[in-house]
Amino acid sequence: MPSGPALDAETILTATEDVLRRHGPAKATVLDVARALGVSHASVYRHFPSKAALREAVARRWLGRARDPLAAVASDTRQAPAERLRTWLTTLFAAKRALLSEDPELFATYRVLTAEHSSAAADHVADLIEHLRVIIADGVTSGDFASPDPTATARTVFDATVAYHHPAHAPEWQTPGAETALEAICTLLIEGLRPR
Amino acid sequence: MPSGPALDAETILTATEDVLRRHGPAKATVLDVARALGVSHASVYRHFPSKAALREAVARRWLGRARDPLAAVASDTRQAPAERLRTWLTTLFAAKRALLSEDPELFATYRVLTAEHSSAAADHVADLIEHLRVIIADGVTSGDFASPDPTATARTVFDATVAYHHPAHAPEWQTPGAETALEAICTLLIEGLRPR
Repeated sequence: MPSGPALDAETILTATEDVLRRHGPAKATVLDVARALGVSHASVYRHFPSKAALREAVARRWLGRARDPLAAVASDTRQAPAERLRTWLTTLFAAKRALLSEDPELFATYRVLTAEHSSAAADHVADLIEHLRVIIADGVTSGDFASPDPTATARTVFDATVAYHHPAHAPEWQTPGAETALEAICTLLIEGLRPR
Repeated sequence: MPSGPALDAETILTATEDVLRRHGPAKATVLDVARALGVSHASVYRHFPSKAALREAVARRWLGRARDPLAAVASDTRQAPAERLRTWLTTLFAAKRALLSEDPELFATYRVLTAEHSSAAADHVADLIEHLRVIIADGVTSGDFASPDPTATARTVFDATVAYHHPAHAPEWQTPGAETALEAICTLLIEGLRPR
């Protein structure tokens, strides 16, 4: 098996994503990835020391992709903070729901990582809370929101919408009324953030 | 085996609770219950047509017991609606956490029933939302809260605190800061409910 200079980490991650899509997180092996690339499994291990490390790196890459549109919403100062907060929360829900329905095996991988408290999942959550902090801090600056500690408030908002982003609640995401229910939470939280 | 007139449904439910505590929801059988009572399994089936029906009846009984202190909080008009709402939500969390640590096998049974969308679990949630509705409606009457639809608002409040009552989040309940995090959600929701 040739393992020429073409085999870089990105190539391996793309192949792993395909293998995870086909076999799911429980059955996919490093050998499957090596076979898909036509290389020895030693060539894969040279880049990623274990199956866990490889799965973590794949998750880190596609969680990053999933965050891009959310980062764009968080920094879009053309939208007033209250509406930006609502847009961000509904965009996150739409993205999670789309991943679940369009890419169920990758969603299952994400679910495993969440349950295992992986650093990829923890870093992802930290990045999402930072988005919320930016929106809330902008609202405090503009006088739209009151918050003594935007980071703490960001955590509280994330926590209060857990039913719409935590994978444990995925079975409820396709029920009629899920979007309306999230909108109602957004309205109550935004009201709660307004200064008096 | 004698199956005298002493064998009533309550006696069977108490024995089933003990069997569930000892064996857990996966391993407990109707035969275990019959053995514990010294009766034939036919005697048990005379009251409960299946293992599922028996498990459901047990859950219904202890969910009812768990609701009693919450019903007392919901109707305690000596507490102003805002503080009553906070007390109710923190009492629910304390009760769930106590069940998890003191009665893990019964908690596991509850978890199974929730995942199976049993009518006992659904009725329990409906009763809890009715408690919240009473508190919110009292707040609207007293001018402490604004809500065009107290039942819908009750659902939203229940939904926004799901991390502190849904069994899927049980692994996070013993983490330091869980109580403080729930208090922060309560504060934000109560602020959101105040009229302007």
